[in-house]
Order: sequence, then C-alpha cells, then structure tokens
Amino acid sequence: MRLQPSFFPALHERVRAALDAAGLDALLLDDPLDVAYLTGFFHFPNERPVVAYVPLDGPVLLLVPDLEREYAADQRAAAELVVYPEFPGERSPWRVLADALPALPARAGHAPSTSVGRVAALGAAFPGTTWVTSDIVGTLRLRKTPEEIALHTEAARIADAMLAEGARLVASAVAEGTELPTETELAGHVTRYGAALMYAEHDEVVVVPMLTGGLVYGGPNSAQPHRLPGGDRLRPGEPFMLSLGCAVGGRFVESERTFLLGAPTREQRRYYEVVREAQQVGTEALRPGTRCADANRACLDVIRRAGLEEYLRHRQGHGIGLGFHEPPWVADGDDTELAPGMVLSSEPGVYVPGHAGYRISDTVLVTDDGPRRLTSFPRDLTDIVIGA
Amino acid sequence: MRLQPSFFPALHERVRAALDAAGLDALLLDDPLDVAYLTGFFHFPNERPVVAYVPLDGPVLLLVPDLEREYAADQRAAAELVVYPEFPGERSPWRVLADALPALPARAGHAPSTSVGRVAALGAAFPGTTWVTSDIVGTLRLRKTPEEIALHTEAARIADAMLAEGARLVASAVAEGTELPTETELAGHVTRYGAALMYAEHDEVVVVPMLTGGLVYGGPNSAQPHRLPGGDRLRPGEPFMLSLGCAVGGRFVESERTFLLGAPTREQRRYYEVVREAQQVGTEALRPGTRCADANRACLDVIRRAGLEEYLRHRQGHGIGLGFHEPPWVADGDDTELAPGMVLSSEPGVYVPGHAGYRISDTVLVTDDGPRRLTSFPRDLTDIVIGA
Repeated sequence: MRLQPSFFPALHERVRAALDAAGLDALLLDDPLDVAYLTGFFHFPNERPVVAYVPLDGPVLLLVPDLEREYAADQRAAAELVVYPEFPGERSPWRVLADALPALPARAGHAPSTSVGRVAALGAAFPGTTWVTSDIVGTLRLRKTPEEIALHTEAARIADAMLAEGARLVASAVAEGTELPTETELAGHVTRYGAALMYAEHDEVVVVPMLTGGLVYGGPNSAQPHRLPGGDRLRPGEPFMLSLGCAVGGRFVESERTFLLGAPTREQRRYYEVVREAQQVGTEALRPGTRCADANRACLDVIRRAGLEEYLRHRQGHGIGLGFHEPPWVADGDDTELAPGMVLSSEPGVYVPGHAGYRISDTVLVTDDGPRRLTSFPRDLTDIVIGA
Repeated sequence: MRLQPSFFPALHERVRAALDAAGLDALLLDDPLDVAYLTGFFHFPNERPVVAYVPLDGPVLLLVPDLEREYAADQRAAAELVVYPEFPGERSPWRVLADALPALPARAGHAPSTSVGRVAALGAAFPGTTWVTSDIVGTLRLRKTPEEIALHTEAARIADAMLAEGARLVASAVAEGTELPTETELAGHVTRYGAALMYAEHDEVVVVPMLTGGLVYGGPNSAQPHRLPGGDRLRPGEPFMLSLGCAVGGRFVESERTFLLGAPTREQRRYYEVVREAQQVGTEALRPGTRCADANRACLDVIRRAGLEEYLRHRQGHGIGLGFHEPPWVADGDDTELAPGMVLSSEPGVYVPGHAGYRISDTVLVTDDGPRRLTSFPRDLTDIVIGA
C-alpha cells in the first residue's frame, strides 16, 4: 500500500499557503521523514543530504545524491530531481541545489531539527538568503489525512497479528514442553512474521528501515523500558513484554502487551490490573479539545492513586505517524490541544526494578466522536496469561 | 565484548586537553554515538535528549530520562547520572542539567550535528553561556585506539562468516533445486545467523539498534546502491549482492560481495573484474599521508579507464566506527590525510541500470605499514560464482 499520487499536490498547496502566511519564499527540509512526507521518497538516511525544497512559486525539488537517483525515480517521488554527484564532493550538495534554482530566495525556512553545521553550510551556499527556523511541516504532520489513516489502520491489523503470533509461539513451547525462546529469537520471529504477512497480502510494500520490529524482554530485563532485546530466555513464572510495531506506506503503529507465563501471582495481577485501568482511563481522555498534559495526568494518576508512583518511568504516550515517536507528546509540558486526525500511542507502564515491567500500548486515533483504538489485541487478564 | 572501564578516563583526559586548547569550559554532546563513545552507554535514540557533558574540571555527566536510568546503570556508564523525569516535562531536560552543575560554563561547545532547535533550548537554559560549534570529539573519533581495533577485528570475522553463510544458503538451494530465497528472506537469514554467532561466542554482547544486518538485492534491483531489500526472489543467471555489516562492542565493519548465480556471461565477468581491480587499487592506496580524495581518485580511475564511468554512482568509501558511515570520506572534496588507526570501507561499485550492480567492500585499517584488510572474504571470480 502506498499513498496515491494525488496526495502530494494537495499537500504542497497546503505548505505553500503556510509559507505565504509566514512571509517565506521557500522551505527546505532535510529530515528523512519530512522528505518522505512531502515527496513519497523513503531512503536509508546517512551523511549524504536528501532534501525537499518547496518554493512559494515553481516546482517542488528533491535533492538527492547520484546513488539514490534511480531509487527515487522508482518510487515515483513527487518532485523534480536535482542530483549531486557524491558527498562531500568538490561542489557541495547545497551549492548544487542553489545553482538549480532560477533565483535564490530572500527569506527561507528550515526545520528546527536541521543541524547547526548544515545551516552554516546553507548560509555559505545561498549568499543573501536569510534562513529562519520554521515548523510549518511539523505542524501539518500533527493531523493525519484520511488517506494516511487508512495506512495506519492496516498497519494496526498487522501489528496485532504479530502480537498474536508471538503469544502463539510461546504458548506452543509451553504446551509442548520445549525450550522457551530467547528475547532475540522471539523478536526475530514476530518481525519476520509481520514482514511475510505484508509481502503476502500487499501488492506494494513501502520499505522503510524498520518495516516490522520491536522490543521483547522478560522478567527483570523488562523493568528497563527501552532495553534492547538480548540473549536471555523467557522464564516460567515471569511476565514478558512484546512491544511491537510496523509501518504500512511508511505510517507506523505500535501494539504492545505484557504477558504472564503461568498462573499470575497476586503481585503480578495487581501491577497488571493497575496498568490496564490506567490505559483505559488515559485512552478515554484522548478527545478533541483535551490538552495532552491533562490526558497524561488523568492516565498516570490511576497509577499514583494505586500507590505505584515510584514505578513510573515515562509519560502516557506520543504521536505516531511517519515517525515512530513524533509530536504531540502525551506528557507533562505539552499543552497541545488534541484534534481529530491525531494518532497517538496510549501506553502507561510500571517498572519494578528486579521484578519486571508492565505496559499496555494501543495506537489511538482522535476523532470527532472521541478516541478510536486502531490496535485492538484483547487486554483482559485472562487474555494475556499463557500456560496457566 | 565491551571496552574495559579504563578506556573512558583516558579518553576523558584527551577531551579535556582539547577543551583547554580550544578555550572552552565544557563540551556537550547529544549525538547518540558521541554519547556511547564518551560513556559506553548505548541506547535507542528518540526525542528524549541523552547527553554527555564534559567539563574542564569535575566529573563527566550523563543526562538521561528516567526511563533509561536503570539501563545506563546496567551498562556501567562511565559518568555520573543526571536524571530528568520525562520529555518534554514541566522543567526542560536542559534546565535539569544546568541545575545539576556547580556553575554554568562561560563558554561551552556542542557538536556540528546538534540541531538548531536544541541550541536555542540550550541558550534559554544556560543564561550567560556562550555556545560555539566544536568538532573536538569528531576529530578524536577519526583514529581508533588499539582497544577499539580489537573490536573491529572481531566484528570483521563475524561479518565474513555472515557472507559465507549467505552464499552457502543460496548454493544449497541451487544444489537441491529448491526455490531461491527472496531478498528479505536472505537478509533475515544472515542477520539472524550473525546475531546467533555473537550470542554463542561472546560473554557479553553490546546491543545496538542494528547489531547485524545489511542490504541484499539481486538483478536490476542491485543497480540501485541503497535500495532496501524487498520481496523479489533471486533469479538464476543474475548477479546478487550481499552487503552486510555488524557491530561488536558498538564498533562496525562491513563486508560486501557480489555473487554470480550460474556461469558468468562475458558482460558479468567484465563488470566484476573491473570492480575487483578498482577495489584492489583503492585499498592499496589507503596509506598514512595519502589524502582521502587522492585514494578515491586512484580507485575510481580504474573504472573510468575501463570505460564504465557512466555506471559510477558513488565514492570509494567512508570511515566506519561507532557510526556505520562516519568521517573521513574517501571521496572528492575530502582532503583529510590518512593516518594510522583510521578504519575505512573500500567499496567501489558499478551500477548498470536494468541489469545489475557490482560492488566489493572490505573494511580496512590504516597502519604504519600500510593498509590491512580486516574483512577478508575471497574476491576471485571463482570464489563468487555459485552453481556454475
């Protein structure tokens, strides 16, 4: 699945309207996801600049190194290509771009994410241009269009299927009395399963550096929220977490569940139920007009009121789209008002050092009618107990 | 394998000497690889700042969000932890760092890779501090220490084993007359094989977001140098490329070969032999005192003289270390003089649209005695023909 070509001219017009309102002659974007958003070209980021350039008048340009030229054409990038030979090159990529323009802009914007080194190089290649920081594209990316939501919805179906397959693999090892998988093996298995499903069912797969994947950890390892999967095996009696995600048409979702291996202890049951309640309350709060920080507070207050505040390690969630993590942040300090078309993770957790972590995450679409869970793997205690 | 704790105090002293020489009171580094270099802490990068702060006097600090606290301790990060609750937070991470300092620096440096948005946030949190761009750590990272070279050497052994396993898998499908693998299947197979080898043979695996992996593509797809692997199967009679890499202790190498499936045609043989000769000449040029741009020219001139200039898409190579691509660039426009301890890819290629790409890459250490190939999968035509 891929966005229809008609998506891009409409988007370019919205960017131009915002440029006009901001008094800018052009916008230059060098974040790989901003480039994919504006042109449909996905690539493996490295030191070679890949840049989308949107002038107020005239065609959108895509600056690429020669080694990406055919790949950009193959992906039908919605922009005119400007190709530089190689990086760093005798003439800098920025100079090649400047030379391709009919006239240099008087006042141009770049994203806040552009590096200080690049802005200095731009200044040298665009004499007379005033460069300012502009978040025009970051603001547009906050609210997803119906075409994008269709991609998120399909990604959610696949992420849920990956969760089910991971649970099935573990349940089958328990039932057959065979060795339980290591974190790495289980992560590899569900990653391959999700990718195979996409290739089997989709005519066109938009390949991104992490098409399907996730974090998998059990027992005390799972008390470290962002620990990468290692060689430890799952162990009977311990919880384990499948924190999975995938991208369809470059649009991500995540779907995460904590599973209990064997009959739950009272302690395990308590932690799980508190997180389940927090996730339910937090998800219900994702409604148009609610401030992100307020949803987060309602969500985490469930955990605080249960006396588990010391085990909090992170906020309720984050925006998700072309980026696996992107604004808005469902967190203290983010006063963004939720609006229809925003897609967010809702993923409170508690992390008990030396014991385990418990987290439940769904990807949620904000609609006029309230929150809609795009991922929907079941969440009752009986749904996540394996081999009891 | 992991660097010994003694690596870090010695490195911190080198950074402080450079700070002193540059008239700086402190250096702040927010690139995940700079952080890993200075503290030994590897993490999955996201919007939450993770920062190493090296003052001229006093302990090195590592600023992390609460959710990385235990993970950093677990990895024995060589720095004092400063923990902020969450991102964005009611008090910004930068403010938390400033408040943890006994005094704000008068003049401090950040890397060229730091974003414009972050420098603005730093300015707000450090009133009175003058921030300047400094490449102190980038310069130190150019030359690897003996401890780092030992990690690269072990990574090279594993990358070569991944290549051999990929070739074996394809040869066995040919011999048994079974279906050839898809690009994705073959990429997944060698990635898992390399990771399993590490876990089987190493007491400690330093997990990084891409521990083992690579690009795999056949036939016309391989004419696009950075195309990501997709669902197409390898086809008899066509070349295919295994462009693999891995990291030991966080230090990368790459090892890449083009294979020919079936008896080579005259055309295939010609392209392959020209690339092999260019890679030999280019690798021989990687000697102390040679400028990067000159090595690149000697290498690519072999391809030009053979009349294949139109099929060039990229330079000879790049530095490799904590980054899969990092300076120096073995390319036009980089006048860096090669020096002992530099580790570089040597990977010329030709890319014939509609036909295939041909590339050979080794990871090469510059020594006083000249270039030393760390990867050493054989390169003769007979070594890379499968099923003839």
